[in-house]
Amino acid sequence: MIKARIIVRLKDTILDPQGKTIHHALKTLGYNEVESLRTGKFFEVSLNIDEEEKAKEVIDEICRKILANPVTEEYNFTLEKIKS
Amino acid sequence: MIKARIIVRLKDTILDPQGKTIHHALKTLGYNEVESLRTGKFFEVSLNIDEEEKAKEVIDEICRKILANPVTEEYNFTLEKIKS
Repeated sequence: MIKARIIVRLKDTILDPQGKTIHHALKTLGYNEVESLRTGKFFEVSLNIDEEEKAKEVIDEICRKILANPVTEEYNFTLEKIKS
Repeated sequence: MIKARIIVRLKDTILDPQGKTIHHALKTLGYNEVESLRTGKFFEVSLNIDEEEKAKEVIDEICRKILANPVTEEYNFTLEKIKS
């Protein structure tokens, strides 16, 4: 069993209105130390696979084809072996 | 300058319909190795703060009060010092 933790976020060059809104709200509340804020999506996926190489392939394919939009988003992930 | 990477997700005991839907879609597409999938939110926050202790306090407060709903969600974050 392998657990993948995936982060999908907008590319740095793409505007992030949701992040801007939260940033603005934080400033209104007095958090002036916050310089910027960007949002993204997180996925935790458990895979019935034992070899890390194979898991990496599957997760990369799922990210590329389904979870992320490669035109506007980028993704990265970490894998962790879980004793089942 | 300190960069915080925050993950907010539903507690394990709370149903995650969005995750279930994506999981189901993956199965339909033939990814039968996927055992479970849960979703969450990701935030990347840049802080105009130099001491890690202070940054930790601010981020923890922002998470507790604004980014996460402590009744249904849990959060964790990592801090990284950035040369400005």
